[in-house]
Amino acid sequence: MSTQSDLAETNRLEAFSDGVFAIAITLLVLELHAPKLEEGQRLWPVLLDEWPQFAAYLASFAILGIMWVNHHSMFRQIQRADRGLMFLNLLLLLWVTLLPFPTSLFAEHLEDRTSNGHVAAAVYSATLTLAAIAFSLIWWYVLRHHLVEHTMSKGEIRKSLLRYSVGTVIYAATIGFSFVSPQLTLVIVFLLALYYGFEQVRTRGGTA
Amino acid sequence: MSTQSDLAETNRLEAFSDGVFAIAITLLVLELHAPKLEEGQRLWPVLLDEWPQFAAYLASFAILGIMWVNHHSMFRQIQRADRGLMFLNLLLLLWVTLLPFPTSLFAEHLEDRTSNGHVAAAVYSATLTLAAIAFSLIWWYVLRHHLVEHTMSKGEIRKSLLRYSVGTVIYAATIGFSFVSPQLTLVIVFLLALYYGFEQVRTRGGTA
Amino acid sequence: MSTQSDLAETNRLEAFSDGVFAIAITLLVLELHAPKLEEGQRLWPVLLDEWPQFAAYLASFAILGIMWVNHHSMFRQIQRADRGLMFLNLLLLLWVTLLPFPTSLFAEHLEDRTSNGHVAAAVYSATLTLAAIAFSLIWWYVLRHHLVEHTMSKGEIRKSLLRYSVGTVIYAATIGFSFVSPQLTLVIVFLLALYYGFEQVRTRGGTA
Amino acid sequence: MSTQSDLAETNRLEAFSDGVFAIAITLLVLELHAPKLEEGQRLWPVLLDEWPQFAAYLASFAILGIMWVNHHSMFRQIQRADRGLMFLNLLLLLWVTLLPFPTSLFAEHLEDRTSNGHVAAAVYSATLTLAAIAFSLIWWYVLRHHLVEHTMSKGEIRKSLLRYSVGTVIYAATIGFSFVSPQLTLVIVFLLALYYGFEQVRTRGGTA
Repeated sequence: MSTQSDLAETNRLEAFSDGVFAIAITLLVLELHAPKLEEGQRLWPVLLDEWPQFAAYLASFAILGIMWVNHHSMFRQIQRADRGLMFLNLLLLLWVTLLPFPTSLFAEHLEDRTSNGHVAAAVYSATLTLAAIAFSLIWWYVLRHHLVEHTMSKGEIRKSLLRYSVGTVIYAATIGFSFVSPQLTLVIVFLLALYYGFEQVRTRGGTA
Repeated sequence: MSTQSDLAETNRLEAFSDGVFAIAITLLVLELHAPKLEEGQRLWPVLLDEWPQFAAYLASFAILGIMWVNHHSMFRQIQRADRGLMFLNLLLLLWVTLLPFPTSLFAEHLEDRTSNGHVAAAVYSATLTLAAIAFSLIWWYVLRHHLVEHTMSKGEIRKSLLRYSVGTVIYAATIGFSFVSPQLTLVIVFLLALYYGFEQVRTRGGTA
Repeated sequence: MSTQSDLAETNRLEAFSDGVFAIAITLLVLELHAPKLEEGQRLWPVLLDEWPQFAAYLASFAILGIMWVNHHSMFRQIQRADRGLMFLNLLLLLWVTLLPFPTSLFAEHLEDRTSNGHVAAAVYSATLTLAAIAFSLIWWYVLRHHLVEHTMSKGEIRKSLLRYSVGTVIYAATIGFSFVSPQLTLVIVFLLALYYGFEQVRTRGGTA
Repeated sequence: MSTQSDLAETNRLEAFSDGVFAIAITLLVLELHAPKLEEGQRLWPVLLDEWPQFAAYLASFAILGIMWVNHHSMFRQIQRADRGLMFLNLLLLLWVTLLPFPTSLFAEHLEDRTSNGHVAAAVYSATLTLAAIAFSLIWWYVLRHHLVEHTMSKGEIRKSLLRYSVGTVIYAATIGFSFVSPQLTLVIVFLLALYYGFEQVRTRGGTA
């Protein structure tokens, strides 16, 4: 049974996480700069040439936005927060706050046909994979420590853990795919974010 | 009927949005830099020459501030948040977080008499138009999915949708106007923000 | 009488303001940079030479921190928020979010013995004066529109308004003083912040 | 006895602090930059060469994250906030918001074998020591002014104060250690953060 004090605990953890997500998603814009034009140079084609910056911005915005929605859905099911949960949540937030850096790296090398393009894409995919692992660890932890609000059957538990594992494996696969095509990797992680936006692990009915 | 759980849902969505608005409005200042003076150069005229930076800062501050007030008014009438609403809200926040970039672009080219001035103004106006469209979509969505707290007559619904559509069309018109005069465009979007500050879509009485 | 809905209104206004204060106070650090040293140059004297940056950082931190405390005290006495209050609050937040810019300007010219030092100090002082005016306007507005939680006698009202006016006049005086000595101006605004930290307008007893 | 109004007070203080912690922890990423490569230079070794940036990022993230957790635990035991507590809390937040600067300084000089490496490490350690002192002052203040929710025996009080003092002395010792080895200093403060993550001052049982 969830007491007043436990709820306050979860609320402050969620509020802190919301703050970090909101700041990370807004800081992404700092990687976009008004281009310095030379005398007589036209702005429009220069902006179009910056498309990798905008594409990487859009992908990271979508990924962080949907991670926030899913973090939110997950924590709605958690009734108590203990110190272990706080640390696993910090681990997740580590990758969330880091994301503007690989985003900038990826954007810089998105059109780079040398191995640098592959390395930048792999660093980006690896960050997402580490975030997916942190999500899985949180879910595994709350199930193991009975911090979930509702009772779940063994089948439901196994199914929910399986879905997180599959997600992690798919993200890990994008690291490998980075060495095939950085640009396709960006498309894939963007589509994956959209997919997770609509099909998240549900362990009970509800509006979100 | 609005349950405790639904309210919590809307509250966290509002808190996240508030965070994003608060950060975006505060990040605008990062585009203002203490000018690097040459030996013997006087500060005051250099600061006055930077007026486009200050004008664009003021306009974007007013626009984001009033968008926040209106977001707030709108969500006071929404009693439940579902996943669709969360995504449409993320779409709105995408343009909110992006705004520091077109602001910087606009400021850079506000005195530019070449076509670049028009392009920068058009990019700025287009961002505001996309935000207006996102606002309209949210309102259309919450009406369609009966997420509004109070009952509205068909006439009230039509009227409120019409007002959002008119707003969107006006913002779209500023894109065209960007090709007439970037500086007048800035004045117009600033006045539009003030107008929307005082005359927002109201579907019921209330203090705000 | 303060209803549940009015309270929610004030709460979200306070939460948004808290966010803006928290971000502005944290963004100040972005003006501090690890100095680029030349080969063989020693770090310690270079850091000491950057003292104007640290002094301006400390002053602006104290000012924003104490403005937050006083904003907080003021809003504890406000029971309802209407649209007018929201706009006056946005006016205050305009100067709050702007502060990192005059801080950086002031730091850059704190040791400048030319008129530029005076101009930078005056811009800084003017920003603080505008914030003090916004505070006075908010207090005048909430009294006039009976948004205050408790009843105040005419004498108390006059006294509280007088104290805000005196504060504004003192800040305005620092603009003039900027033309005497920028460095003393920084000391004065810092001491003023401390003074307001301990002696704020109180219209009722209470812990804060 | 804790009234509704006192709780609101503590809540807003915690919310403001949470905001500052969340922003400071997220701003750390702004010190990481996609490296500018020369024609034909490979990205991967350049990224590996940037390890001091990543190590300092990780240490400061862990330190701020765990300071947040401990701030949180401490404030759960505080039932009322007065003006003095607000100022001591601002003092703590001063060092929290400053941390991105010494982090950047430390990262820049982590491999510097001259005295500059020692100075940078000492500045970093000194900032942490000042934060530890602020934590101790807050705890001493809330005990002295009976702002704590629960009754503590004289023995418990002395023990809790002792533990904070020991922590402060240990951090002060890292200032001295900075002159032995900057790199080992980084390892030590990182391990100290982890230690404080698991062994914080507890004055009562509880989940966190």
